[in-house]
Parts: sequence; C-alpha cells; structure tokens
Amino acid sequence: MAVYTDVSAEELGDFLARYDIGELLSYKGIAEGVENSNFLIHTSRGSYFLTLYEKRVAVGDLPFFLGLMAHLAEHGITCPQPVRTRAGEALGTLAGRPAAIIDFLEGVWPRRPSVVHCAAVGGALAKMHLAGQDFAMRRANALSVAGWRPLFDAMAPRADEIQRGLRDLLAAELDFLEGAWPTALPAGVIHADLFPDNVLFLGERLSGLIDFYFACNDILAYDLAICLNAWCFEPDHAFNVTKARALLNAYCRERDLSVEEQEALPLLARGAAVRFLLTRSVDWLNVPPGALVKPKDPMEYLRKLRFHQSVASVRDYGVELSGRAG
Amino acid sequence: MAVYTDVSAEELGDFLARYDIGELLSYKGIAEGVENSNFLIHTSRGSYFLTLYEKRVAVGDLPFFLGLMAHLAEHGITCPQPVRTRAGEALGTLAGRPAAIIDFLEGVWPRRPSVVHCAAVGGALAKMHLAGQDFAMRRANALSVAGWRPLFDAMAPRADEIQRGLRDLLAAELDFLEGAWPTALPAGVIHADLFPDNVLFLGERLSGLIDFYFACNDILAYDLAICLNAWCFEPDHAFNVTKARALLNAYCRERDLSVEEQEALPLLARGAAVRFLLTRSVDWLNVPPGALVKPKDPMEYLRKLRFHQSVASVRDYGVELSGRAG
Repeated sequence: MAVYTDVSAEELGDFLARYDIGELLSYKGIAEGVENSNFLIHTSRGSYFLTLYEKRVAVGDLPFFLGLMAHLAEHGITCPQPVRTRAGEALGTLAGRPAAIIDFLEGVWPRRPSVVHCAAVGGALAKMHLAGQDFAMRRANALSVAGWRPLFDAMAPRADEIQRGLRDLLAAELDFLEGAWPTALPAGVIHADLFPDNVLFLGERLSGLIDFYFACNDILAYDLAICLNAWCFEPDHAFNVTKARALLNAYCRERDLSVEEQEALPLLARGAAVRFLLTRSVDWLNVPPGALVKPKDPMEYLRKLRFHQSVASVRDYGVELSGRAG
Repeated sequence: MAVYTDVSAEELGDFLARYDIGELLSYKGIAEGVENSNFLIHTSRGSYFLTLYEKRVAVGDLPFFLGLMAHLAEHGITCPQPVRTRAGEALGTLAGRPAAIIDFLEGVWPRRPSVVHCAAVGGALAKMHLAGQDFAMRRANALSVAGWRPLFDAMAPRADEIQRGLRDLLAAELDFLEGAWPTALPAGVIHADLFPDNVLFLGERLSGLIDFYFACNDILAYDLAICLNAWCFEPDHAFNVTKARALLNAYCRERDLSVEEQEALPLLARGAAVRFLLTRSVDWLNVPPGALVKPKDPMEYLRKLRFHQSVASVRDYGVELSGRAG
C-alpha cells in the first residue's frame, strides 16, 4: 500500500507521447498494490492505470502477465487490457523501471461480499479458466505445493510466536499434503489470488477481474479452492455454505467439474489455506518495526485450514456430487 | 503519504446518496496527503475528491478551510470547491470521521518549476490574497513567529544531531526575528503552504491551487516569502533570481506591494525559512524506525535561511524598489 517511485510530469509526458491515448490531464499515486507503484491517470481520452514494476516482480514474468490480460480480454473476459504504444509495445520503461499502461476498469470491490457476489465470482472464474485454455505462454506456480516447504522452513523456528503449536500443526499438514496432492487434475491458467479486492462490481454486476500478477499454470480446481477460502467465510470465521453453494454452482454452470475434481476440493482447500497461512506468517514475522503497513492476520487462515480438515466431502460445501467422471 | 482509513463501498454509497453527483463508479485511495485520507472518486457525473479528516486536523478548523475554498472559488480563484449535499451541507461524517467531497481539479504539479510556472504562481497568489479580503471567517496562524519558540524548545536539545551549531544558529535567529518581526504590514487570508505540489498546471497554464489546510490569517507578504523559498531555489540550492523576479513581478501586477512590504521581504523570507526548518527538524528527529515515509530534509531550509541572511534588500531578489508608501 504505497507508491514506491514518484514520476515527474515531464517524464510521464514523454512516456505517454509514445501512446495514442490523448493529453495528460492528471495522475495520482494509488495507495494499493504492495508489489508495484500504481497511478491513476486522466487523459483527454479517459482514465488509465500506470504500473511501475518494482523489484519484487520478476521482469521476465511481465510478458506472461500482460499477454494473459490481453488474451483474456480478447476472449470476452472483463479484465484490464494493456494499452500498446504506436509501435505495438505493451511494456516500456519509466523512471528506470519496467512500466505499462492498462485500461482503467470502473467498479468497486465488495468489502462485505454477498451471495450474489459469490455467484458472480464463481461464474467469472470458470469463464476465465476456459478462456485461458488456448493461451500459449506458461508460468510455473512458485507458491504451489512444492513451494510451501521452503516457506515453512523459513518461518518454522518462530511459528509458535504466532500461535502455540503452529509449527507442529503445519509440519504434519505439509507431510499430508505433499503425499496426497493430486497430479492428474485438469490444469491451465489460474488467477491464484482472486480475493474480493481483485474483483470489481458495479452494484451486483461484476465489472472486472484485476491484478493478474500471481497468475500461473496450475490445477484449475485449486483456483476454485482459493476462492472458497477468500469469499465464503464470514468476519466471525464461520463458513457460509450458502455462499459456497452459490460460488460452486455458478462455476459448474460454465465449466463442468469432474468427479475427481469435486472429490479433491477439500484437499485443495486445505492446500490453499496452508499457502496463505504460510505467506502471511512470513510477512507477520518480518514486519519492520514502525511500518505503516499492517500485515494480514495469519490466524484467519489457520481457522480456515481447521475447517477444511473437518470436511468429509464436497457435500459439506453445499453441493451434491454429480457430473461426469474425469 | 498514506490512506489511514479504508471505506467500504457500501458506506461510501450511503454517504454519496446524500449528494446529487451521480452513481458511484470507482474510488481509489490516493498516496498523498500526510494529514488526511484522500480518495479519487469516479461517478456517472465526473471525478471528485473525498477527504476524511484524521486526528491531526482540528475539526473546528474545517468550516474555515471549506468555507474559504468555496469563497475563493466564487471569487474566480481556480481551487477545489466543496460539494454540498442536497441539504446544503459541505461537511459530513464517514467511517467515523469528518468527511467532505470536493471538486477534482485536473492538472499536474511541476516537479521542475520553470520561470513561466513561477510567474503564474505569483499572479495566482496575489489574486488569492485579493479574493480573500472579504472572507469573513478568521483563523490564527499557529506556525507564525509566536509559534516558532515552542517548536525550537522541542527540538533544541537534539538540534545538533542534524547539523553541528544548528541550535546556536536558530537561537540567535529566533531572538532576531522575534524582535524585528513586523506588526503593521497588510494582513489577510494566506495559503501558507503554496509549494509546487499544491499548484496544478496543464502545460504552462495554472489550473488550480489546492490543499488549503494550512490557510490562516497572517501578513500577506509572508505568503509571498514562503513562495520565494518554495519556488525560486534550484536543486543545487542556488537562488534563481530570474524565477524570483518573475514571481514577484507577476504578484505586483495583480496587487501592489507597499514600500514597507518590499523592505520587509528579506526578513519575512528568513522567517519563512525558519518556520520550515523548524517543522522539518521536528519531523526529522521524530521519524519512527522503519517508517516508509522519508521526512523532508531540514538542511535545505538551513541553506535558504543563510541565503536570506546575506540579502541586503529586495533588489537582491531581482526587483527594483518602487510603488507607493504603505
């Protein structure tokens, strides 16, 4: 939540001269996005987003992210579309950093998601998975099952500072997940971070999916499991089965879930909970003293993990087993 | 440079329903403004600024600030105008804080001010001083000469951590300023913080003055002295007499400077330098460890103070003594 790089009007003007998007009217640094510096730009043509990619983003991944957004937008997904320069380039350099202009999408993200929001997200996720099937580029998921052990090793010595017993609990859970993780489920491009703050709505109508900077190739149903965790728990940590049913049914209306995918869902949801529990724990333990940015509470994901450990089958998520064998 | 308060779409929607400014399309927290939380809002009618006033702003001062902006806008000054609710109120409550909607002004602030920018600022400042003459409300300047001694007392024990000898230098300068500070110069509403980041331009045309949250009643020429310091020094700390001449001449074209005001200008510029040297020093010495916000360098204002101490008369600022006696 910070602008890391300031940009002068003069250098921004020079940068924008390469694009056909009108005259610069104003630009404001946006207080969101932990990884990058983001600016909302007004020109005589409309509103745009300018992102300067800071060091935490691998420059080599940018063509994947920008290419994916362009591909999805061309295939009917409402997501920000990179704007190309007159020379056809989506990626440039500004203030010494890789930089891109993308369409600004109107919409607000729901701080208190409703059942209608959950259904909209389920449907949009399925459509995104289908639209991504013929995207040619690939990017491995560094935060999938193989990436959790190194994160655990980094935080394990201090895990019990967060919660007594967390180290042993995570060690056992990782052993289980590494042994049981599915290898033959349908895979493709996943968003991997489709939390409420990455889904825009105008009223109850979904107006866009944003922030594709964790997107990668992985198990499609794992993306769904991330959404179950992100959308279907209440502020008091109770699982809302009505929201889960709405999200899953809406997904299945757009893309069939095989029996194998359905059966794997509780396991995938445990994995998704572990993934965010681990990264939040690392952030929590490494926050600099006096930092303005408050890290997200890892305990939220420990509670979610425990819920999924108690789940017997996908029926506990509110849906009936059905559909074709994979 | 931070959003201190988040606002949910739901509560913002409720808040905006009291205004006649169309449907909410999007809102983004802006990474500027140290004192308040600011959001850029798009509605079906246009762009607006939402400010939530945080604790550092005295609630009792808000009617002065908002009333002044409305008064100046009505008198032809391009500044943000508070938007009133259907019930006629400019100040409301959102997320438990005083909150106001003001017009969004297009424009960018010049990171490298030119002579043309300086002339535009001089003219706009004079027009603002004239337009403020019949503004009925009053607000004392807590950061004028009477307010410097308490700031000095707070930072004096550690002043030499910033620069050896700073404590003695400031003590002597304060003694001098308190004895010599003028009491009979023309006074009125001053902006008191008209730095380049508070003046917007579209190309070389000034498109607005913003951020009136230091505005108060004080000596008009003191406001001009603040601008001399803020606009007429180069990044290498050299005084640019061409810029000063442009700024002062443009001011005088709109509002006569009496001989007394002209003669007082070097003294007022020393005072203005001390005011920012003191507040920056306090911030510098009190930055929390690990803070993301880097405080501004107080040494910049020590150099400016030394320059003005060396000035013999207003002629050293590039202008000839002229005009009527006060």
